[in-house]
Amino acid sequence: MPNIRCVVEYNGSGFHGWQVQPGLRTIQAELHQKIELVTGQELREVIASGRTDSGVHAKAQVINFHLAELPDLVRLRRGVSSLLNGEVALLSAEVVPDSFHSRSSSVSKTYQYTILNRDTPPTIERGLVWYFPFKLNVEKMRREAPLIIGRHDFSSFRGGGCMALSPVREIFESELIVDPPYLRYRVCGEGFLKQMVRNIVGTLTEIGKEKRKCDSMLEVMRALDRKAGGQTAPAYGLCLEEVKY
Amino acid sequence: MPNIRCVVEYNGSGFHGWQVQPGLRTIQAELHQKIELVTGQELREVIASGRTDSGVHAKAQVINFHLAELPDLVRLRRGVSSLLNGEVALLSAEVVPDSFHSRSSSVSKTYQYTILNRDTPPTIERGLVWYFPFKLNVEKMRREAPLIIGRHDFSSFRGGGCMALSPVREIFESELIVDPPYLRYRVCGEGFLKQMVRNIVGTLTEIGKEKRKCDSMLEVMRALDRKAGGQTAPAYGLCLEEVKY
Repeated sequence: MPNIRCVVEYNGSGFHGWQVQPGLRTIQAELHQKIELVTGQELREVIASGRTDSGVHAKAQVINFHLAELPDLVRLRRGVSSLLNGEVALLSAEVVPDSFHSRSSSVSKTYQYTILNRDTPPTIERGLVWYFPFKLNVEKMRREAPLIIGRHDFSSFRGGGCMALSPVREIFESELIVDPPYLRYRVCGEGFLKQMVRNIVGTLTEIGKEKRKCDSMLEVMRALDRKAGGQTAPAYGLCLEEVKY
Repeated sequence: MPNIRCVVEYNGSGFHGWQVQPGLRTIQAELHQKIELVTGQELREVIASGRTDSGVHAKAQVINFHLAELPDLVRLRRGVSSLLNGEVALLSAEVVPDSFHSRSSSVSKTYQYTILNRDTPPTIERGLVWYFPFKLNVEKMRREAPLIIGRHDFSSFRGGGCMALSPVREIFESELIVDPPYLRYRVCGEGFLKQMVRNIVGTLTEIGKEKRKCDSMLEVMRALDRKAGGQTAPAYGLCLEEVKY
């Protein structure tokens, strides 16, 4: 059974996230259905490098799935993209060794979160950036962002209902890029807990507003308590940028 | 009468271009109405650096208008942006000398046109890029783009119904930036004829497809005939980036 790997771009706006949920339109369910339609073959499961929340975008999500017979890969890619026109695009499709698993084979994932920090709402990039009209101590945020790099217990940034067995994750890169009026938060790690990136961003912005009692990412992280962390930044500012294997 | 100058960002998708037209929703008409609403003053005209076609975006259009009394500029900016939430934003508002006229005082304008050159449609940037799935000789396009720099008669790129008195314009910069899967065409000039940038881009892509008899921008330009030029690229890939004074 050929194992097919695809790089997938999507605009998360019209979906209830990645994972199949009864009665809801999800990226996994749409891809499953369209791949079956285009190939005429039944599919067991479309596996992704990780779930993305409702509204989160991806420039390069990686998926894989097994088919009984090798399909025409160009036809597969164009056909599925065309059926999901403007919402999901298969950027590549290739046959990979049977051992490849887009979730368990991944070694790192990079996310980017974009904040629009000005006092008027976005127009051209609406739905892609978090409109944040409040004054921020950007220099402080820039200093605080890298403090979570390393292997840590991220319970303080762990969203409710997270099914992960362990709250420990290794973060390789955590940086705030100041590009007025944008603030871009880039984070690369071996993996992430539920809503972890959005909770980190929400906490960073609260620290930037300087109205927080506990104004250090280190202190928040060490509390091992979600209540010590800040608000959850909205999903639509977040984009999965890269998955490495 | 204070003369107010604003830098304006807009997403052109929901508008029939800049200029007031009876019965149609235009950026000029919406701004006129909202500025009157927020200031409580009557307005003669909102002047822009130039009209943009239906669907064209702007990151920094410059406008000016005269009011009988000086309004609260922060309130004006936020109020108008809020009323046009997600479509038009006033990025700045300041009082300028009476002699300032956003169209006739301008010395150059920079536009950027974005082509998505891959075989699957855009998802995250839909409505902001031209999806062009055909193979292009990008190197040839890159060489041809600067050939229109200088003071020339641009009749070959002049859209029908153009009201300009002269077809002669000076172009300072004309460059194709290759950033796969994007091709970004940047052009800076003292001013542009109707649909001129879109006609230049359409001609460039036809040259890139290598199916054109006349495959030189110079030759097209020298023909002084719209029929010598290529198709008009769609409006939504175009964005007014900067106006200089």
